[in-house]
Formats: sequence, structure tokens, C-alpha cells
Amino acid sequence: MSGDYGAQVCVPASLDQLKTDQELRMILVGQESILRPYLENIPATLASRVSFHEASQLVTMDEDPRTALRKKKDSSMRVAINLVRDGLADACVSAGNTGALMATARFVLRTLPGIDRPAIISTMPAIGGHTHMLDLGANSHCTAVQLFQFGVMGSVVASDIHELESPRVGLLNIGVEAIKGTDLVREAGRMLNRSNLNYVGFVEANDIFTGQVDVVVSDGFAGNVALKTLEGAARMISSYMRAEFTRSLFSRIQGLVALPVLKAFRKRIDPRRYNGASLVGLNGIVVKSHGSADRIAFGNAIQTALIECQQGVPTQISNLLEEQAN
Amino acid sequence: MSGDYGAQVCVPASLDQLKTDQELRMILVGQESILRPYLENIPATLASRVSFHEASQLVTMDEDPRTALRKKKDSSMRVAINLVRDGLADACVSAGNTGALMATARFVLRTLPGIDRPAIISTMPAIGGHTHMLDLGANSHCTAVQLFQFGVMGSVVASDIHELESPRVGLLNIGVEAIKGTDLVREAGRMLNRSNLNYVGFVEANDIFTGQVDVVVSDGFAGNVALKTLEGAARMISSYMRAEFTRSLFSRIQGLVALPVLKAFRKRIDPRRYNGASLVGLNGIVVKSHGSADRIAFGNAIQTALIECQQGVPTQISNLLEEQAN
Repeated sequence: MSGDYGAQVCVPASLDQLKTDQELRMILVGQESILRPYLENIPATLASRVSFHEASQLVTMDEDPRTALRKKKDSSMRVAINLVRDGLADACVSAGNTGALMATARFVLRTLPGIDRPAIISTMPAIGGHTHMLDLGANSHCTAVQLFQFGVMGSVVASDIHELESPRVGLLNIGVEAIKGTDLVREAGRMLNRSNLNYVGFVEANDIFTGQVDVVVSDGFAGNVALKTLEGAARMISSYMRAEFTRSLFSRIQGLVALPVLKAFRKRIDPRRYNGASLVGLNGIVVKSHGSADRIAFGNAIQTALIECQQGVPTQISNLLEEQAN
Repeated sequence: MSGDYGAQVCVPASLDQLKTDQELRMILVGQESILRPYLENIPATLASRVSFHEASQLVTMDEDPRTALRKKKDSSMRVAINLVRDGLADACVSAGNTGALMATARFVLRTLPGIDRPAIISTMPAIGGHTHMLDLGANSHCTAVQLFQFGVMGSVVASDIHELESPRVGLLNIGVEAIKGTDLVREAGRMLNRSNLNYVGFVEANDIFTGQVDVVVSDGFAGNVALKTLEGAARMISSYMRAEFTRSLFSRIQGLVALPVLKAFRKRIDPRRYNGASLVGLNGIVVKSHGSADRIAFGNAIQTALIECQQGVPTQISNLLEEQAN
């Protein structure tokens, strides 16, 4: 178990989920000597549904993905993904190094037939709901065909996670007119237009948050820029709020009065609610939790993996892709 | 005069600036019969510093830039830029169609020697200050050399507008490690590294807001995505806040108590403060105001143009570019 906090967060979060879901079983992958102490004194009903799988190595958060792939063949990340490949686990959830997780998952699980490159998809907050966005950083540069495939994958995930019959798919561009953007984006737009997806056309980055679209497709560079801009802007706005409410004794009192409302507001934009990015397009389910996720956030990542297992996301992607070809 | 509100906003904003700056003279470009009524009953000290220049056409907000360039040779936009080319005006400020303004400015004024493409630069809010970002949408795709040139232009603008001796220049990427991003971004990074700019390396989109960097360089696609993400996120957060503070009678009262603080907060993130994007890299000064800018926001765009005139931004860009070549 890696991530910034390792077992300290992942094990308690796993136990929380075991309590909530009586059908769930968890395999903790790592050094049993480190993991076992976290399980002392847990009820037998939980203990019976937890098992261990030894892995002697750990991929560090700043390790080069290629080095991790070559030299860490017994890392917890690699071993967990092997379990998925071998059918011994239904999904892998990791808070580790994103690049290494993607490289390892791609190498071990391989992409689905008809999918060129896997992508990272996650929910973003939107007025009145959520938007699914992909790719969030796995592929700096994409072809038009890959963007089209992202549209198919995004449509499946949005449909499964938010029970939408026909998710509205938009293609990220720097204007909504047909002449805008690069040749590549325009070509992807034409492909999506010819598909049987519910394609709504070009969207701009502000549309991610309006609730007018369910899936936003982009290459990993633009997607990552949108994700990091949101994170940075939210942090700046929080910092401004804190500064304003602590400016004077009087504003501190005003802040105290407003506290319950501010708390409710913070809860709405709590990034922990949006934790759990999926690596889609693979022969198996892999969910990436934020490296600094806490117990609640990591729990949400496990829940995302659970829904994807129940819905059979990889099979659905293959099916929807096949429909497009016909 | 175009923009969403035309003369109704541009003329009063111009008069405000004339009041503040006794040295300033304004040429109002458009149909005098429409513009003149806004100047009735103004003091003689202002009237003596306002003149008119007739332009019979108007570029609409959704007009294709190429059509505008070909068919609107007597538009207010074109005529105003002609005045800059002919040395009859020191700068052009417009709230009109961005694409048409850029195409017209590029055609009429031409780029500075050594600059391949002009870019759009604007300030973004950051903790404890501002960050200058370019390109914000003029060039969907850029070469490494163009990104390098954006670094030079951004450095000049940041230095002039915020009186920074040696602005910290960062290159937008999807990770700070040397292996991240596209070949093109990595090549631009190497060029910036060899320059005499204060280049701080790759930055991620969240760094736009931390105050750790003064200039963020990116292609127009990623830059536009960052800008629009910020706009969309800010609007969503405002909407959440309003919803929380109007949920019940009690939360309304809490909102009233907190109102002065919330107002101060809103003022800090007021997009009007950041209005006025410059088209840099041209033989002349052109500033683009947001189409829906109000009087205060349009006034800020005029002030940006003023500072660029006083500092001689185009000449400074040429000088700094020459230094790089030596």
C-alpha cells in the first residue's frame, strides 16, 4: 500500500466499507507485518472478509513509471493488479503514484479490444450534479480516434455511476463554433457526431460546471489543466474566505454566525466527495485514489470500484464500442 | 464600438478615465450620431479631450473573423486599429469579437520582428497577488519557438504592469518532472532554460493561483481551458454560496450578518478587476475588454492600455527578444 499515508488510511477506510457492505471482501496487498496491526480487535464478521496478499516492494510517489515497471515487480501496486488479471480480485484501488499505476495497469491488464489507450476519468462538481471528465492526464497528446474512444468510455461510466440512460457527451474546445480549435479536435467532433452517442457538440471549460453536459472529453493535457485549475481556484477561494473572516474581531464574530452555512458550503465542494478516478479502457477495473486522500475520501474510491464491478464497466465499454462499428 | 453593450458602456467608462487622468485623450470610433448623445452636458475640460472618428460598420460578436476582415473594412474595430498603425492613436481598446480583433490587428499592425504569432495575455487572480497568463486562446496549437516567444512577451508585460524586476516565468505542464508532457512542451522548456529570463521550470495549472510564479506560458488551447475553468468554477461556487445562504429563514439571517464579509470576498474575486487582455507581439498596443464588461471593467481595460503606452511594451518586447539572440 502506497500513497502519502499508506496503510494508516487505506486499512481503516477498507474496514469502513466492509461494515457498510456485507457482501464485500477486501484483499490487503502489502507487507502483512505492517498491515496486520491495523486489524487488531476488529469484529469477527469483518475479519472473516479480510485477507492479505504479500508484496515486498513499494512504488514511491515520485518514482519514474518506467523504473517502477521494470524494477518493482513485487510492489503492492503490481501485485494487486496481477490479482485482477488472474481473476483473484474484481478491482484494484490504489492511492499510489498515478503514472506508475497507469503504466503497470496497461502493461499487466492490456487495453480492451478496440481501445488504443486507457484514460483517467473522474467526476467534477457541477451546478445541480456532477460531470464526468476524461482524460485527466494519462495521455498528453491524443489522436481524433482516441478522443472518440474516450467519448464511448465516458458515456459508459457516466451512465453506470449516475444511472443516466443517455449521457450528454461534449468535446472540450476553445469555442463552440464549428471552426474553433485544432484540426484534430474538429475531426474528433465529426466522429462523435456520426456515432450513436448522445453527442452535444463542442463545450468550453466553463461548461464543465454548468450541469449542461454529463461527460466532457479532452486530451490528457487539457483535462489535467482543467482539473488542476479547479483545485487551485478552490484553494485560493478558501484562502480568501479565511482571510476575510479573520480580518478583525468583528469579522470573526460574523464568521462564527455564518459558520454552519459555510460548513455546509464546504461540504458541497469537498474534494473528498469527488475522490476516485478510474483507469478506463483496460481489461479490468483499477481506481486511483488521490495520494493525500483521507479515510472518507479513500472510502469513496472503493465505492467507485464497487459500482464499476457491479455494472461490469469493461464489458459495457466493449459492447458500446462494438455498436459504433456497426 | 461593439461589444455586448457598445457605446452605452464604452463612452461613460472613457469619460471616467478622462476625469482621473488629465493627460489622457480619447478618440471615440464609431457612428458619431450614436456616440455624441452620450457626451451631452459634460464639462469643457473633458469635452476638449474627446474627439470622434467615423466608422460606418460594426463587427458583430458572432461574426467569423475572416469575414470581418474581408468585408468590414470600415468597422469601428478596423478603423481604430488603423489609427494605431498610422500613429494617430497610441492604443486601441475594444470590447468586440476577440477573433476578429486579433485577425484585424495582426493583418493591419503585423507582428513585431522575431515574433511568429501574437498572443492574448491577461492577469489571473492569485493568493497575495496576480499571475499573467498567455496565450489565452489566439493560437490553438503552438510550436516550441512560439511558446518561448510567449515567455519573453509575458515577462515584459508582468514586469511593466506590476513593476517586477525579474518576473518568474513558468511553463504550463501536467507535472513538474522533466519527463512530463509533450515533446513540444519539453523543447520549449529547454529553450526557456537557456534564455536569460527568470525561468522557474514547469508549473501545473494549480500553480497559477499560488503566487509562486508571475507568468504562466501555455498554448492558446490549454490557456483558454484554464481561463474558462476558473470562470466556471467561480460561478459554480457563487451559486453554491447563494443556495446555502438562502436555504432557510435562519440561514438567510446568518447570510445577512456575514454580508459585509461576503461582499469583501466577492470584491477580491471580482472578474471586473481582471478585465483587459492585451494582444501582445504586434507593432502597436491593442487591449481587449470582455464583451460583457461594465463601466468599471471597461475602465480597467483602458488603464491596462495606458500602462502599456507609458512603458512602451512593443519596444520592450523587441529589446528583450534581441537580448535572447545575443
